[in-house]
Amino acid sequence: MKKSNAAIVIIGNEILSGRTQDVNVMNLSKWLNELGVKVEEVRVIPDVESAIVNTVNEVRKKFKYVFTTGGIGPTHDDITSKSISRAFNLNYCYHKEAYKLLENYYESGKFSEGRKKMAKLPNNALLIFNPSSAAPGFIVENVFCLPGVPSILKSMLGGLKNKIVGGKKILSKTINLRTVESEIAKSLEDVQKKFKSNVEIGSYPFFKQGKIGVSIVMRSTDKNLISKCYKSVEFFIKKNNIKRI
Amino acid sequence: MKKSNAAIVIIGNEILSGRTQDVNVMNLSKWLNELGVKVEEVRVIPDVESAIVNTVNEVRKKFKYVFTTGGIGPTHDDITSKSISRAFNLNYCYHKEAYKLLENYYESGKFSEGRKKMAKLPNNALLIFNPSSAAPGFIVENVFCLPGVPSILKSMLGGLKNKIVGGKKILSKTINLRTVESEIAKSLEDVQKKFKSNVEIGSYPFFKQGKIGVSIVMRSTDKNLISKCYKSVEFFIKKNNIKRI
Repeated sequence: MKKSNAAIVIIGNEILSGRTQDVNVMNLSKWLNELGVKVEEVRVIPDVESAIVNTVNEVRKKFKYVFTTGGIGPTHDDITSKSISRAFNLNYCYHKEAYKLLENYYESGKFSEGRKKMAKLPNNALLIFNPSSAAPGFIVENVFCLPGVPSILKSMLGGLKNKIVGGKKILSKTINLRTVESEIAKSLEDVQKKFKSNVEIGSYPFFKQGKIGVSIVMRSTDKNLISKCYKSVEFFIKKNNIKRI
Repeated sequence: MKKSNAAIVIIGNEILSGRTQDVNVMNLSKWLNELGVKVEEVRVIPDVESAIVNTVNEVRKKFKYVFTTGGIGPTHDDITSKSISRAFNLNYCYHKEAYKLLENYYESGKFSEGRKKMAKLPNNALLIFNPSSAAPGFIVENVFCLPGVPSILKSMLGGLKNKIVGGKKILSKTINLRTVESEIAKSLEDVQKKFKSNVEIGSYPFFKQGKIGVSIVMRSTDKNLISKCYKSVEFFIKKNNIKRI
């Protein structure tokens, strides 16, 4: 069985052009962490069919889960449903259940062509319900397609939990220090060597209110190991008289 | 000659885990737009040598420029320089100029092992100077390696302009509307068809202070075409009595 890992594919010219700040990666990653699924790669790609087809076909083989965001709305630049159909060699056609959902949602006479487009999905796709604005996301095999608007995306995650088989929850502990990275590099490397790949230690310099510091982040699925690692870091901090924040 | 395009490779577990919100994509993309370079793909990958080597070797062939961020500091999880050396089959060794720079920057006796590590680069790499904290970035062929800390990254871009041969600057115009996407989808699609791939039109729904709206973004390198496209959009807006914001 594949590891409980995932890739996120952000579909959208607006992210690539720098017009829009993506926040979906952060939201999805945190949510997946809680379920014990580790995000191991992110791609941001344009609203171009061949880019979507090729990228999705590559990552869906490499990772247990793939989450796409964006491109499932009613406008001409929303081509995710069509592209995913092509990636899986499925018909792109009206999805009965989605059509019904949307038809019921809009007032009589307001279910326009543009809105009907949101009911066109890969044949037999599983729906992801949308409590915010009716237009559903969908699942084909291990690929989960979600909208790009962050608030709508978040509102749809609740209904997805039982579709994800996660591993152990990824735990993390952080120590913030009043120091610079180069002062602790050697000690930290020794701790990392001791815990090998069982605890992943990251070191992140920061500047806050004119003061510099370093965050040491330890991540592991093993509660005991993370505690031991934490103690090893505490040990060299005290020994070297480094201030904690 | 390759198009003036670029890929950005964000190296860092902290982005994948959702601990840190990336802002470097947005900053780099905007800066590259100004120089007429279009970012066509972004990858976020972990601090793992094979991931860095494989990703960089793939994208450096596909795009004119590649920008990496992160992993050039002094700690054990900073493995970008070593990995780029491997990607290009270059020795990973002390870089004379970088060594001198750093040696001069630190007080006598403070040029520790950790700090010396930041002078280890792919053999003969071109330096990218760092006005914030001395530790340089570097260039190997078409791959530009920058730090992950956004403020430091930004401070280093100024010195890079003459290293980038851009195309025509990518212009953009935006119209904000008090409407929903499905109301304008058909008209917008017609405009997009008219301008084909010469103007890229994006439609982005938003929620601000409890009100919904849509931003229409037109992007092109051709000033006249973008003006004409803008007029076409204005035309159907007026015709359909859609309010501008």
